[in-house]
Amino acid sequence: MSTIGILGGGQLARMLVEAGTPLGQEFLILDPARDACAGAIAPRMTADWDDESALVNFARQVDVATFDFENVPADTARFLAQRTQVFPAPDALAVAQDRLAEKTLFREIGIDTPAFMPVDTREDLDRAVAQIGLPAVLKTRRFGYDGKGQRLLRESADIDAAWQDLGGSPLIVEAFVAFDHEVSIIGVRSRDEDFRTWPLTRNWHRDGVLAASLGLHGTGAGRVADTAKSHARAIAERLEYVGVFALELFVVGDRVLGNEIAPRVHNSGHWTIEGCICSQFENHLRAVLGLPLGETTVLAPSVMLNWIGEVPDMRIALAEPRVHWHDYGKAARPGRKVGHATVCAESPHELSARLRRLGGVLEREAQVAPVLDVLSHYAAD
Amino acid sequence: MSTIGILGGGQLARMLVEAGTPLGQEFLILDPARDACAGAIAPRMTADWDDESALVNFARQVDVATFDFENVPADTARFLAQRTQVFPAPDALAVAQDRLAEKTLFREIGIDTPAFMPVDTREDLDRAVAQIGLPAVLKTRRFGYDGKGQRLLRESADIDAAWQDLGGSPLIVEAFVAFDHEVSIIGVRSRDEDFRTWPLTRNWHRDGVLAASLGLHGTGAGRVADTAKSHARAIAERLEYVGVFALELFVVGDRVLGNEIAPRVHNSGHWTIEGCICSQFENHLRAVLGLPLGETTVLAPSVMLNWIGEVPDMRIALAEPRVHWHDYGKAARPGRKVGHATVCAESPHELSARLRRLGGVLEREAQVAPVLDVLSHYAAD
Repeated sequence: MSTIGILGGGQLARMLVEAGTPLGQEFLILDPARDACAGAIAPRMTADWDDESALVNFARQVDVATFDFENVPADTARFLAQRTQVFPAPDALAVAQDRLAEKTLFREIGIDTPAFMPVDTREDLDRAVAQIGLPAVLKTRRFGYDGKGQRLLRESADIDAAWQDLGGSPLIVEAFVAFDHEVSIIGVRSRDEDFRTWPLTRNWHRDGVLAASLGLHGTGAGRVADTAKSHARAIAERLEYVGVFALELFVVGDRVLGNEIAPRVHNSGHWTIEGCICSQFENHLRAVLGLPLGETTVLAPSVMLNWIGEVPDMRIALAEPRVHWHDYGKAARPGRKVGHATVCAESPHELSARLRRLGGVLEREAQVAPVLDVLSHYAAD
Repeated sequence: MSTIGILGGGQLARMLVEAGTPLGQEFLILDPARDACAGAIAPRMTADWDDESALVNFARQVDVATFDFENVPADTARFLAQRTQVFPAPDALAVAQDRLAEKTLFREIGIDTPAFMPVDTREDLDRAVAQIGLPAVLKTRRFGYDGKGQRLLRESADIDAAWQDLGGSPLIVEAFVAFDHEVSIIGVRSRDEDFRTWPLTRNWHRDGVLAASLGLHGTGAGRVADTAKSHARAIAERLEYVGVFALELFVVGDRVLGNEIAPRVHNSGHWTIEGCICSQFENHLRAVLGLPLGETTVLAPSVMLNWIGEVPDMRIALAEPRVHWHDYGKAARPGRKVGHATVCAESPHELSARLRRLGGVLEREAQVAPVLDVLSHYAAD
């Protein structure tokens, strides 16, 4: 039995604890927030990321440390890595935390990306816009997630306001990509360099937050999936990565563009809990513990629906077969991820029918509509 | 979100908490033992079953109470039921706690049983042996599980020793059954009277403790499974049962004999966690919370192996695909249930091959041998 330290105590940590308890593991959560939802099922320390005496104490109590939150300062990770095992390694974390380093890595290993340029000054910004053209997106290089720290530059008149909002932090300008759709690939690499991916996932966002994911399995995703898997492997090997990570990609016509790496288990992989033999959560733990990796094979066509702001009525939803409920035990708050459901079925056709009924009874028609649209192509097969 | 109180904090409570956390539920464990293993993932009160002030305090903190341990005194359950909701109801618990009441119920609703007679005195014992014949089994009417509180009476000479060991408690003598095999059926009944069963499970015991279970699905179990399901439904309806229970049965030629009821989730249903759409643990919680029941359909042929005394090396076992590990976080001790593994596969043939390899690498050949024997009949189909 090991004690696994997790930096960050949100729903990702909570689902790691859920996956690790059957493996006989114990956990210790470190989070600045007193109400971190993983604290309901694991011991928790409340401390800031730069509280060195807390970090020393934390390191003393754990056998290995990992992350629920990608924006834990890399310096915190380095401080811990001198005192205990840390996976993924702080240097890999640092690359994923910085959009410039990330995109530079993508280019180095042959992953296509939108045009991008670093921006530190107002002059850099003008130069970048002149070179890349509009529309473009100004983003903070660090601390961005769920659409935070981003401003769309539609026309020249948007530049001033965007600079006022974001100027002062290290920034990056990227060409705006009118993508056909967004996909992600979840990969896992073990301490002895075994590498696996789950099937490609198609994702839909609303207001910058993931609304739905579809585990794409079989028909249709072939070439894109192959490209995505090969990219994920290249990243994992270059970073000597240990654990689970997500690679988010844009598909634009024939192109597959690298968007970002999330150096942790990822919202678009939640469907693997019920949809695959071994989930992203269990395999992340297996990787950081030095255990053999589990099978990433699909068990059932699956759709994940995120609950944003508030959790719908479970009593209504669970009357539908094969609806797997995940309530994170968080207080309702607009824009907050408070839960999700994964819907599984025997076939794309059955999944489609089930999803339509669920969307209806929960009054989430708009959330399920784009998924139904894609499923209609599968269901016709 | 509700708080579910669980009386008893062993591995059954632990797996209930594991199933209930994704549903957003909170838990409170009550157990006389300080080291109850469910306490690793849920708040725990340490108190004896007759500690009324603790029970009042417990009842105040929970929305509903249920059981991990079938031998919680029925009076404790009744005391709680005056203060909070308790499922299953204390009267149903009381029947399952008493072998005489249980067997009498079996007879009343048409479930065949071995011959039996109550024994309170030494004279009763002689009379019972004279009537039932030898071999027979002398059992305590209460507090028996895992073969505890039982003495085999092979010949008249065994009677004195058995009486010395067990006399003084209310007892029962049952005809010894040279059964062909043991099966169990797990049933669940909801607060609105929906009733479901999981597929029939074949069980193997060693030294009175469950060693292996096989989820029997399809071929071979037809008539016995139908009888078992109909018996389970009759029991659930008669007891107005709410929650999960197990009915253990002996199969002897054409006869299906009732052995006992376990008024709780059951060791022979652990394979439903990965082997079925909705596990016995989740459905027990759905039942006690008044939620719709989940599907009990099988996802994959599955075998459960109990780890008794100590947990084998997880690192070796997890190299085999579709081995799902459950380490209860308990200290090793001879005869103690400390974990289990469920092995799933696409087909009986694949399951057989996997189980043989796993038995080999873990040096558990004897434990898997009888399961392989049964699987060989399926695998030939």
